[in-house]
Amino acid sequence: MFRFSRRPVAERRVRADAQRNLDAVVQAARTVFAAEGVDAPVRTIAATAGVGVGTLYRHFPQRSDLVIAVFTQAVDSCAAAAPALAASLPPGEALAAWLHRYTEFVATKRGLAAALHSGDPAFAALPAYFEERLGPALSSLYDAAVAAGEARPGVAPMEVLGAVANLAHGGSPAMVDLLVDGLLTRT
Amino acid sequence: MFRFSRRPVAERRVRADAQRNLDAVVQAARTVFAAEGVDAPVRTIAATAGVGVGTLYRHFPQRSDLVIAVFTQAVDSCAAAAPALAASLPPGEALAAWLHRYTEFVATKRGLAAALHSGDPAFAALPAYFEERLGPALSSLYDAAVAAGEARPGVAPMEVLGAVANLAHGGSPAMVDLLVDGLLTRT
Repeated sequence: MFRFSRRPVAERRVRADAQRNLDAVVQAARTVFAAEGVDAPVRTIAATAGVGVGTLYRHFPQRSDLVIAVFTQAVDSCAAAAPALAASLPPGEALAAWLHRYTEFVATKRGLAAALHSGDPAFAALPAYFEERLGPALSSLYDAAVAAGEARPGVAPMEVLGAVANLAHGGSPAMVDLLVDGLLTRT
Repeated sequence: MFRFSRRPVAERRVRADAQRNLDAVVQAARTVFAAEGVDAPVRTIAATAGVGVGTLYRHFPQRSDLVIAVFTQAVDSCAAAAPALAASLPPGEALAAWLHRYTEFVATKRGLAAALHSGDPAFAALPAYFEERLGPALSSLYDAAVAAGEARPGVAPMEVLGAVANLAHGGSPAMVDLLVDGLLTRT
């Protein structure tokens, strides 16, 4: 059932603007981190996002807040791709397409490595977040592909995530292809 | 043409004994390094080999000499498996069997990692030795499998060696299986 928000229009607009700013900052941080590393100047990120440095600091007081936002946004967007692919491709192809989509996440994560491996306790929850979001995303595609006879049964999804990350991290897209192909049932 | 050695029998026996000792020491070093790490006491290696510590030091004055001997022996034995497998299995199976055999080498190499990554210039030539021996070993099996229509063409052998090492290093034999399976042409 559709219900009108009880918040006044002006307030809703402010909130929408704030959300847009926030999204722009996270997007800009991802781009700048990828290009210049996770120690890139905050003013570069603010300028790329088209917001003031004050706005950036209000949303993300610590650099670790930005790193966490980039990481979780990348996880979320990768997880969201799973149902979208399942809806538009045969099960085996959806599985393969998602695993290739996942290599984009691996590249983003790799760009954050210096921060993520710094030992900062702010990042302690990220591995669990990764596993809880991407494990089920892959499992749903994999189970459907197995059920359709398009993937070999008995493979552990988390192990596949680790292996593809390993190969993608080594800069071997062709090797990711081999692994994904080995996962599929060819006819 | 067969020719009798001009060395007297006694000298030949001494040389054969020396070679046997040397082989026993390298074998013992491999076992002890795998169990206790590359900093294991020399006397443990000598005792395992059944030789005196003096004999061990005469053959291998530095610990790096032992590490190099274990590494090159492991490379040589892995390379030697290639023609043996090619002679006894269909090309695709020989390729797959050799890649699994190669994961044994990866495990040995992993046990030597602390030494190999120490920056000691004594180890500088080992990566080239690895590549020159195992690259052609894999290429010969891979080319035969492609020629027989049992492996997909266009894959770079050194990339496969790197990828399998990566996956085996991560402790994922099932993931090595997937990659090898992706390399083979299923019918």
